Amino acid sequence: MRASQFPLFTNKETPADAEIASHQLMLKAGLIARLGSGLYTWQPLGLRVLRRVEQVVREEMDAIGGLEVLMPAVQPAELWEESGRWSLYGAELLRLKDRHDRDFCIGPTHEEVITDFLRRELRSYRQLPLTFYQIQTKFRDERRPRFGVMRSREFVMKDAYSFHLDQPSLQATYDAMQQAYIRIFERLGLRFRAVGADSGAIGGSVSEEFMVLADSGEDEIASCSQCQYAANTELATSRLATPQSPVAPAPAAEEPTPGIHTVAEQCKVLGIEPAQVLKSVVVMADDSPAVLFVAGDDELNLIKAAKVLNADEVRLAEPEEALQATGVPRGFIGPIGLPDGLRQWVDTRAATLINFSTGAGRQDYHWVNLNWGRDVALPKQADLRTVKAGEGCPRCNQGQLEIHRGIEVGHIFQLGTKYSEAMNARVLDEDGKQQPLIMGCYGIGVSRVVAAAIEQNHDEQGIIWPAPLAPFDVALISIGDDRSAAVSEAATQLHDQLQSAGLSVLWDNRDARPGVKFADMELIGIPHRVVIGERGLKNGTLEYRGRCDSENQDLPVDEVLGVLLEKIGSPSSSKAG
Amino acid sequence: MRASQFPLFTNKETPADAEIASHQLMLKAGLIARLGSGLYTWQPLGLRVLRRVEQVVREEMDAIGGLEVLMPAVQPAELWEESGRWSLYGAELLRLKDRHDRDFCIGPTHEEVITDFLRRELRSYRQLPLTFYQIQTKFRDERRPRFGVMRSREFVMKDAYSFHLDQPSLQATYDAMQQAYIRIFERLGLRFRAVGADSGAIGGSVSEEFMVLADSGEDEIASCSQCQYAANTELATSRLATPQSPVAPAPAAEEPTPGIHTVAEQCKVLGIEPAQVLKSVVVMADDSPAVLFVAGDDELNLIKAAKVLNADEVRLAEPEEALQATGVPRGFIGPIGLPDGLRQWVDTRAATLINFSTGAGRQDYHWVNLNWGRDVALPKQADLRTVKAGEGCPRCNQGQLEIHRGIEVGHIFQLGTKYSEAMNARVLDEDGKQQPLIMGCYGIGVSRVVAAAIEQNHDEQGIIWPAPLAPFDVALISIGDDRSAAVSEAATQLHDQLQSAGLSVLWDNRDARPGVKFADMELIGIPHRVVIGERGLKNGTLEYRGRCDSENQDLPVDEVLGVLLEKIGSPSSSKAG
Repeated sequence: MRASQFPLFTNKETPADAEIASHQLMLKAGLIARLGSGLYTWQPLGLRVLRRVEQVVREEMDAIGGLEVLMPAVQPAELWEESGRWSLYGAELLRLKDRHDRDFCIGPTHEEVITDFLRRELRSYRQLPLTFYQIQTKFRDERRPRFGVMRSREFVMKDAYSFHLDQPSLQATYDAMQQAYIRIFERLGLRFRAVGADSGAIGGSVSEEFMVLADSGEDEIASCSQCQYAANTELATSRLATPQSPVAPAPAAEEPTPGIHTVAEQCKVLGIEPAQVLKSVVVMADDSPAVLFVAGDDELNLIKAAKVLNADEVRLAEPEEALQATGVPRGFIGPIGLPDGLRQWVDTRAATLINFSTGAGRQDYHWVNLNWGRDVALPKQADLRTVKAGEGCPRCNQGQLEIHRGIEVGHIFQLGTKYSEAMNARVLDEDGKQQPLIMGCYGIGVSRVVAAAIEQNHDEQGIIWPAPLAPFDVALISIGDDRSAAVSEAATQLHDQLQSAGLSVLWDNRDARPGVKFADMELIGIPHRVVIGERGLKNGTLEYRGRCDSENQDLPVDEVLGVLLEKIGSPSSSKAG
Repeated sequence: MRASQFPLFTNKETPADAEIASHQLMLKAGLIARLGSGLYTWQPLGLRVLRRVEQVVREEMDAIGGLEVLMPAVQPAELWEESGRWSLYGAELLRLKDRHDRDFCIGPTHEEVITDFLRRELRSYRQLPLTFYQIQTKFRDERRPRFGVMRSREFVMKDAYSFHLDQPSLQATYDAMQQAYIRIFERLGLRFRAVGADSGAIGGSVSEEFMVLADSGEDEIASCSQCQYAANTELATSRLATPQSPVAPAPAAEEPTPGIHTVAEQCKVLGIEPAQVLKSVVVMADDSPAVLFVAGDDELNLIKAAKVLNADEVRLAEPEEALQATGVPRGFIGPIGLPDGLRQWVDTRAATLINFSTGAGRQDYHWVNLNWGRDVALPKQADLRTVKAGEGCPRCNQGQLEIHRGIEVGHIFQLGTKYSEAMNARVLDEDGKQQPLIMGCYGIGVSRVVAAAIEQNHDEQGIIWPAPLAPFDVALISIGDDRSAAVSEAATQLHDQLQSAGLSVLWDNRDARPGVKFADMELIGIPHRVVIGERGLKNGTLEYRGRCDSENQDLPVDEVLGVLLEKIGSPSSSKAG
């Protein structure tokens, strides 16, 4: 492909409203163009990348027996009323009325539509299990769209849905889907983690998130250095170090600590370490207060707190709420002197503290050398803290936890009968009994994968595509006097030769300075670059440079193809020509 | 592919609300499933067909240098306000508001979006010409969606847009696009016509429609038996037969014709033929009346009338309107005795009438043997009649016109500067002068092509796919005791052999009666059928039958592949496996 036929719409300026690297680079490289808030056009260059992702996803879905369909984007409200989500989904659901004033939405997801399809079309349980998938444009009316296609309103998604007669069948498809996802992200050349998101205590629903690792990721993941354990830090647990060697209990005492509000101030005044402090945190669990105790060097984990308190949402109490709940001014709350009936939980690690310091339950005083049991009854214990890097893996008991940031690009989920019960999607089983269909759903944010890949792979100069995602395998740059017959002829020949060998080539034959061409090819991140100039040709050589190489390499003209094929490997079937 | 892994959702009943063959057959064969009014899910079987259309379209667009993009489906109202279409487009434009109460629409077309893209991204006139295309889901809020995907609300369309500095460049791309469209519909195996739709008199805009021929088509097309001339009958002209040998003018006379209202009654009472009648038709041209004269055996063409009268819309006048405009009661209007200032035009053929009969301009009387010039001044002439089958081709002067019905599946159009002027999309030309971009736009109704192909190709049993559109090349049916090791082994072997040879095969290995399998494979229209049964296998033969064959053919097992490859040809690159 010649740049004269495949124009590049690169930009020099970094767009002002682009906050993260992938958003900046996708705009600068001309992969996408902004149409409106959260709305982007995929330019020809960007679409080539998107299609490569789609193709790998499609192949792996087909390989596990997925049946591709295409459902309408616009969905009747009636179905969402049946499932109950019309009222529950909130403002992210883009609702609209047609010319006859009937209610519709633009689907952010298709559980209702596929369930409706199957309840009409399923003839017999013998047709089960069935897995349908589609690769489709979806819409989610984000309150604050940002980060380009990372959190856009319109986006391309692969969504899959499976239907089963029983749980073992669902589990088998779920496992196959998990393996397919692993193959997809491996084939795309991304560093990622499959993160367990077992919602545990409440209900038996099982799910797993797939996270592309990148410093800019919104999620924090704890993963084991040795085994496959990985979990969102919202949920991760750890095997704690055995407590420090027993210390003799010291006599408890109240110390004056006027004006103290933070653990740091408390430590400074009392000459102790945060690890010796018991932090008292007042929270509101669905508007009902509770006090939670964690060690002074730990962070309270609100998600874990919500599970323990059996609440939909837990947040830190406002100062007035805390005062009202405990009767104690901020900074001086502790386990002693709390009102009867106020819920209290202590974190498992905090429950092992000896000779700890905590608020005295009255203005301007803290306890020191307090001990559970001797001085104050131990409340109920639970895991309430966020894990830290270096702690032991809770699964293998050998590795240590590493903390990475990650970008969620996939999610697989065992739905059970949530939709089939609500929508009456049933089938007669072998014994002639009506059974609700058991479902799983499985998503990949196809357009988001492109952005995540860039977050993970870029430098100052631009994008560094993992080979399977690159819009072109090779950038061919002709420099010097472009009217030079020798350069033009050699470039034409090499271009055709590489294409015939199945490599995709972008020949930058623009009438531009070499520096402009080099900068553009680095910006758009093509993995391999070959430069043809008159000087080199006189010696029968071309200049090769990999996107991450620090130096050029002179190659004899007739060896270039061989070297490239060796570096790139044989072109895979999923690569466009 | 085994039916056990690729379930068929065929239906026995003809859906009550499906009026035309393609709609009925697409539902019965399980190509699509209805979600709501004008909303259809493409099932796995249907999607295979849709993808084949898409692939051919994509290849031909790429071949003429089209650059594939993907624009948002949801578009900001601001752009439509710039172009003026927000107020003009009417109720088919599905409008909606986002959570911030801003106006959007779901795009039925993308002229505004691509023009906005290019006015931001175009760097130099040297980048022109440029052609962008996309294959995308569109929405049009039809007042009365019907005929399945033929006139659905959500549909898949290929829309392309080209940008130019001057008219010759537009013409060159337009011509290339026309040839690409011809190749597309030829490759898809469809009988079609490219129909000129030159809007002529008003402005210079040129367009052409591509019509798949089918009796159920909504459009009527006149095409030449000899040359490439084809036009919608709304616009078609013809080379009329030379007038009958001159007849001597006879004396004009007024005859009493009490109670006469129609040409037929007039002929009966006066003993003449419709060809001797001059019909007077009162029309309202944008609310202003006019009288148009055509021969009694011709039909007034309102589209041609609108051009002649320079009106947006022309309709037949209501009886009261006609009376008010002419002062003459219905049935007795003629060229004599009309009010001054009332516009009058005569059709070119009607202007050659000799000794004609027409209304006398007063109640209950008609003229006979009237002659232009002698008895009444000839009004201005124009082509105002609809052509008929058998008339001479206006282009080649040799062929005769045939009239077919057709389904519009494509439309190419020279837009000129309509959008670029309105949206201020300009570029500096070689002389440094601001020039508005000159545009063309080019659409193909991808999902509609599937329905049109079925309208053109079906019988009582079901669909008869043109080979390039078939979801599978070969249906393999195993019959008899499916647990027969011999049948199962032979079927497995043949299935694998055909797939290895690049043919796509659907092996109906369901536990069902042979009749059910035969009926389903005919319904879904697979071009070639091979039946494997125990009885045949004993003789070493299989049964072959083409979808349109009237008889089975026994083939030796080891000749089947060769016969199929010969019939199907080598599988093209555009066929999915």
